[in-house]
Amino acid sequence: MGLAPLGHVLFKNFLNFNPKNPKWAGRDRFVLSNGHACVLLYSLLHLFGYDVTLDDLKNFRQLGSRTPGHPENDLCGVEVTTGPLGQGIANAVGLALAESQLAATFNKPGYDLIDNYTYAIFGDGCMQEGVASEAMSLAGHLKLGKLIAFYDDNHITIDGDTNVSFTEDVLKRLEAYGWHTIWVKDGNTDLAGITAAIEEAKKVTDKPSVIKVTTTIGYGSKQQGTHSVHGAALKKDDIVQLKEQFGFDPEQNFVIPKEVTELYAQTVKAGAEREVEWNNLLSKYSKEFPELASELTRRLKGELPAGWEKKLPTYSTSDPAIASRKLSETVLTDIFEVLPELIGGSADLTGSNLTRPKDINDYQPTQDPASGDYTGRYIRYGVREHGMGAVMNGIAAYGAFIPYGGTFLNFVSYAAGAVRLSALSHHHVIWVATHDSIGLGEDGPTHQPIETLAHFRAIPNLQVWRPADGNETSAAYFKAITNSHSPSIICLSRQNLPQLEGSSVEKASKGGYTLVEAENPDVLIVSTGSEVYIAVDAVKELAKEGIKAGVISLPDWHTFNQQPQEYRLSVFPDGVPILSAEVMSTSGWQAYSHQQFGINRFGASGPYQDVYKYFEFTPEGIAKRAKATAEYYKGQTVKSPLHKAF
Amino acid sequence: MGLAPLGHVLFKNFLNFNPKNPKWAGRDRFVLSNGHACVLLYSLLHLFGYDVTLDDLKNFRQLGSRTPGHPENDLCGVEVTTGPLGQGIANAVGLALAESQLAATFNKPGYDLIDNYTYAIFGDGCMQEGVASEAMSLAGHLKLGKLIAFYDDNHITIDGDTNVSFTEDVLKRLEAYGWHTIWVKDGNTDLAGITAAIEEAKKVTDKPSVIKVTTTIGYGSKQQGTHSVHGAALKKDDIVQLKEQFGFDPEQNFVIPKEVTELYAQTVKAGAEREVEWNNLLSKYSKEFPELASELTRRLKGELPAGWEKKLPTYSTSDPAIASRKLSETVLTDIFEVLPELIGGSADLTGSNLTRPKDINDYQPTQDPASGDYTGRYIRYGVREHGMGAVMNGIAAYGAFIPYGGTFLNFVSYAAGAVRLSALSHHHVIWVATHDSIGLGEDGPTHQPIETLAHFRAIPNLQVWRPADGNETSAAYFKAITNSHSPSIICLSRQNLPQLEGSSVEKASKGGYTLVEAENPDVLIVSTGSEVYIAVDAVKELAKEGIKAGVISLPDWHTFNQQPQEYRLSVFPDGVPILSAEVMSTSGWQAYSHQQFGINRFGASGPYQDVYKYFEFTPEGIAKRAKATAEYYKGQTVKSPLHKAF
Repeated sequence: MGLAPLGHVLFKNFLNFNPKNPKWAGRDRFVLSNGHACVLLYSLLHLFGYDVTLDDLKNFRQLGSRTPGHPENDLCGVEVTTGPLGQGIANAVGLALAESQLAATFNKPGYDLIDNYTYAIFGDGCMQEGVASEAMSLAGHLKLGKLIAFYDDNHITIDGDTNVSFTEDVLKRLEAYGWHTIWVKDGNTDLAGITAAIEEAKKVTDKPSVIKVTTTIGYGSKQQGTHSVHGAALKKDDIVQLKEQFGFDPEQNFVIPKEVTELYAQTVKAGAEREVEWNNLLSKYSKEFPELASELTRRLKGELPAGWEKKLPTYSTSDPAIASRKLSETVLTDIFEVLPELIGGSADLTGSNLTRPKDINDYQPTQDPASGDYTGRYIRYGVREHGMGAVMNGIAAYGAFIPYGGTFLNFVSYAAGAVRLSALSHHHVIWVATHDSIGLGEDGPTHQPIETLAHFRAIPNLQVWRPADGNETSAAYFKAITNSHSPSIICLSRQNLPQLEGSSVEKASKGGYTLVEAENPDVLIVSTGSEVYIAVDAVKELAKEGIKAGVISLPDWHTFNQQPQEYRLSVFPDGVPILSAEVMSTSGWQAYSHQQFGINRFGASGPYQDVYKYFEFTPEGIAKRAKATAEYYKGQTVKSPLHKAF
Repeated sequence: MGLAPLGHVLFKNFLNFNPKNPKWAGRDRFVLSNGHACVLLYSLLHLFGYDVTLDDLKNFRQLGSRTPGHPENDLCGVEVTTGPLGQGIANAVGLALAESQLAATFNKPGYDLIDNYTYAIFGDGCMQEGVASEAMSLAGHLKLGKLIAFYDDNHITIDGDTNVSFTEDVLKRLEAYGWHTIWVKDGNTDLAGITAAIEEAKKVTDKPSVIKVTTTIGYGSKQQGTHSVHGAALKKDDIVQLKEQFGFDPEQNFVIPKEVTELYAQTVKAGAEREVEWNNLLSKYSKEFPELASELTRRLKGELPAGWEKKLPTYSTSDPAIASRKLSETVLTDIFEVLPELIGGSADLTGSNLTRPKDINDYQPTQDPASGDYTGRYIRYGVREHGMGAVMNGIAAYGAFIPYGGTFLNFVSYAAGAVRLSALSHHHVIWVATHDSIGLGEDGPTHQPIETLAHFRAIPNLQVWRPADGNETSAAYFKAITNSHSPSIICLSRQNLPQLEGSSVEKASKGGYTLVEAENPDVLIVSTGSEVYIAVDAVKELAKEGIKAGVISLPDWHTFNQQPQEYRLSVFPDGVPILSAEVMSTSGWQAYSHQQFGINRFGASGPYQDVYKYFEFTPEGIAKRAKATAEYYKGQTVKSPLHKAF
């Protein structure tokens, strides 16, 4: 309720949208970062003519409703899923960034086709979260002038007065980040003040703006200003007095006065008209700039250019051993030009994770032409993994972009909150996660992932690729780019990997396949990434002892699990014991193997060859365990681990 | 090299320590948050007489050495493991917080026994990380005057000039957080300026201080000031000119001039003397305050008071159904007085996760007596999960404390970086993770953990408890508190859970046990937490159909895995198919079961009973799957999933 006046002013007088076409590309974006206040958002969407019905409002937080306890982006008018605090404001940074890049790329004099604002409301909780700090510092650096954020300063979190933990000077902090700051001292009633503040913010074009709106939580309730109204429903008598106070009939629920409907209908009408104007402008633009227009239209539809995948490199065994981070760089360099929707970046570490194709420009504020401008397609995120993840979610939500971002695999975990929301929200986001194991060597246990793949593989709707060579790296990118509803993490080695006999983009694109065939094998070894070639060498060791072994490469569980059962059983057949081999936690591998070889402890610092030897991830070490597995299961009926009782 | 002058001044003239007893309780704490600069730390430790030899330095980053690529806290003189950026400075906040609480609790006029400073060095990378933002804002709020941090302002990260992504005004931002700020403009040569700055910072007692020390990375190298010196070694000719420039013989390596040894020996001697003085003060204090002294001594040794565990509540089936978050509150209330080393807190949500025992004081700055003071034992962390995790690591590293912190289980993931370091560093930290499943109901998929347990169970050395009732909740706390080398996450329900027949603190303390025995069972159901009682009811459903079933409760995999194999096989015996049932990702459960029932998708918003029904986590739903499992394996030789080939 404290936010209702702001919501009214913003939706009524500023926000540019057409509720009949909520995905209109010219719309302003609105993000409610404090997603627990979603009643406000759902109500505004209903009042302003979106396809959100009174029944939807009545079914708030009920099973099967379209109005869950926190807003999800599958509801029209909800740009991004929010609730986990700090994410929404960081998404807003991504939305604003995307707008500025697309505008710089496509607008022409007289054709400000891409020209929308991103508005966001955030609360104290968001401001306390580190992810917001990272993204807001970046937004200041990037001078995102069309980002206008409202700080809902209501002094209350669930723990009571924010003063118990939060006494910083928020506006000063944002100033330090390079934001323009405005304060509306009475957000409860000063509609003119809110209006003036937004107008001022729109005039500031070289800085993001924050408008601190001091409100009273639960304004009008007997309990206004207390944390009792944060999560809990109001009592009956309080609702009665509240309705009377604002001129409503306390006997009636879910009734909207005719004046309100009529007033808001004007806004709706104006929005529809603006879309017509925008479409007309696009038509004219199409005549003057037909190629640009068709490119823009294609990207806004989310369609890939025909034949882009022909640029993906393929390899044969005569090619040299190459680190998969380097193979990834080659892919990116090869496809960057044909896929202008790709917008890259890295949380520092660019020189290590090789995420920057050569001869491209940075995305940087236009005021700084030396290092790039807003047409640039490489974002310097700084050491801000969580912020990068959430900003990428915002870029993806804008549409017309496929963002990728690099860091060490171990530090994707810093961004776990954002990764989870990518998957829940079906954002088309790609993590380039290099230095993906103990193979990073000297940096040691603090940087060597162990639990990381078990974590990410357990997130629904997330591709987690760990390619073994060049062809598999191309396959990983092929699926990451074509499967637009599932985000990806592509895990890449620091160390060189040989090109494997039997690998291909096509086979690897199934998520898993038989790499080394064996007739009547005694044992199969299933592996991923940098351990696959060692498993292949282990097969040779085993052959010396008369043990027949084959190798399965399983670069992405998620993709493999979507293959027909018949195919999957051809890869993991009945009758053969299977050993998994990966230099990480064995957790999860039991679903694909009878016996597991992994590292269920933290790693070790040293040259990577020494570290691999220490953990016995050598041809001999794997062969020894494969032999033990074959012997253990000898004479037993062995069924494929893929069989299920239900 | 850029930091060498600061390191020299700090260790030589300010840092209070005795290298011959690196764990002396009266020592100042030093944290190198930019852990990649650990050559500096290792060198200082060697030069100042710690048990770090020249051979240790020569074996830097080699397998089996004591000097890994990033410093780990098992080396003397390394207070906390650093390297993952942002963690160290947040740990430093915890170290300073612990000091202030212990001082307020134990010091008496004339007996400033607890009176140490916490010094930390952090770089641009740390400052960009959200975890640092969270912790530093909290430090400002808490007015931690004895925290003195140095901002190594060298303009360089791996990506080159920090200006590519980081143009905020760091000191202004820290001022906004409530810090005292000082700038030493020439950190390369102005030793007097550094000295004066530290002296000034020590005088400011009601604010943490930051000293920005502008340095040149790789000072003295031909490549000074460039990112080429960030990670890579210097070239030979550069080393020669560098050594000549500073008056060393370029032909000699690992040689320490006699003057240096003699100069630093004075510091070492003075440190040893200060420890003697401190021990004398403690002796006197022991005579005047014998009870306090014995309590302090006990806590500094990390010993638990005898018999504390008798306070743990036990339950029988006649006790009512209670949510495990509420059972947790009862445990905390019961043990809080007998375990003064417990220092609680929550990332907001106190009223939801019930982490605050009644009638206790908040830990708050003494300037704010209304809400608590430094003797308080409940920390209002604010909505800062990652910061809380890293601050708890610092508190634990100080010694004399067992910190616990609450949030929703789903948001422990925000702190993944800190949780991993708790486990790697053996910090005695407890997460109270409530609302641990779809059972939180209406808040919906954004708040319902799915992958979370698969993630945390895969972290080595981490207890992940999910108790099923009152006795199991007491067991979880018993193990979390007595197993001082393994941090814990205790996962607790929002919804009520009945007290189970057959549960006990003793049995549950093994991590897993047979809850419902069955003679010649057709199937066993293994489950955790809020699903266990449903599994017990499923057994009754199965009995109606003549199917004999038993139930295994497995509240903590980590603890269970440490039991003797004989015991473990008695719980997971041969000859019976086992079904797992838990409302999360099934990933990992294959290690304990032949068939899995879980939720490999995101959750749903609604009243929790509806959501459980929707996912068929009902007695009937589990029974149906148990029956299918029994039928599937009928007539087959079924071996315990615990058997291994090696």
